[in-house]
Amino acid sequence: MPSVTAKANLRAQVTDGIVEAVLDELADVGFGRLSMDGVARRARAGKAALYRRWPSKQEMVLDVVAGLSVPAAATVPSDDLVADVTALVAGVDAWLSDVRMSRILPDLLAEAMRNPELADALTRRVGTARRGYGQAVIDAAIARGEVSPDVDSEYVLDLVAAPVFWRICGRREQTGPAFVDRVVDSALHALGVSAR
Amino acid sequence: MPSVTAKANLRAQVTDGIVEAVLDELADVGFGRLSMDGVARRARAGKAALYRRWPSKQEMVLDVVAGLSVPAAATVPSDDLVADVTALVAGVDAWLSDVRMSRILPDLLAEAMRNPELADALTRRVGTARRGYGQAVIDAAIARGEVSPDVDSEYVLDLVAAPVFWRICGRREQTGPAFVDRVVDSALHALGVSAR
Repeated sequence: MPSVTAKANLRAQVTDGIVEAVLDELADVGFGRLSMDGVARRARAGKAALYRRWPSKQEMVLDVVAGLSVPAAATVPSDDLVADVTALVAGVDAWLSDVRMSRILPDLLAEAMRNPELADALTRRVGTARRGYGQAVIDAAIARGEVSPDVDSEYVLDLVAAPVFWRICGRREQTGPAFVDRVVDSALHALGVSAR
Repeated sequence: MPSVTAKANLRAQVTDGIVEAVLDELADVGFGRLSMDGVARRARAGKAALYRRWPSKQEMVLDVVAGLSVPAAATVPSDDLVADVTALVAGVDAWLSDVRMSRILPDLLAEAMRNPELADALTRRVGTARRGYGQAVIDAAIARGEVSPDVDSEYVLDLVAAPVFWRICGRREQTGPAFVDRVVDSALHALGVSAR
């Protein structure tokens, strides 16, 4: 059950009170209005406790968001491509079905369009790290001869996440198992593999 | 050439100096920090000129964004499904390749996750209106017997927009004709139609 694993990962990352406060504050006010003071107040901690861990607001946010988001994408390739792609899509679904992440990610994407430094850090520490897990699934399928080495991996990886983001954060509508199956089917088609 | 039409629509909507100022301000500072004062200053107009047209900041933003976004989705169904779906996807691509819209849309989506009133208005005045054009293309294909009436239209319409949004606004990467073709192929597959 990949979604259960992803949810367990989400929980494991938020045992820390300061991390919780960063996530709550980010979900409530967004990156632009988030301050070290606000996080310290919410965490009932001193600002010094925050600065001991992170040199800046951006570092704090990236560290906390990457800590929640990268493990949520962890998928170890099996020898079953359909199961692996389903795990990837279900992982995105679990990640964005988290009430806080469903607010935090669109806010960071919006901020990144205006802030190139945040954009680069977000790509490096969250995007590229998450996509590495999907790429490993594709590479394993190529190595088994199930998928052509000419496949457009970039597009396949986009397809694993984009419809889920759009449904939850773009249209504020629900996902569900039938929706996840449709996304998996689209990704398999883009991999040049026919579904079940 | 659907993308040329969409771009002409984008231009036709922005001949007005105040509308230009709303779009510039929204792209630069986002909905949260946008003020009637800021727009008036940028437009070199009085605030009274803004309040004559719109009763509130939210009304102003929605009117301007809908005025740019809804005509950009206008597609009249032909008898060629591949051409129609290509026009829809190219329309989304032209819409989000506009430098201002690529900042404005993610910002409004982020804001909508925190502001249910804005969310409802955005769905009604932009989302539903834009999706109506795509639904008409699907309905015409169903009427011609090319697509099953059981098709998951909601998912197909998600697929027309989601990968384009994700590539441009989620990953800050380029699109291009080959990418548009891939999105069209995904949408046709979801329609149960094999591509070219």
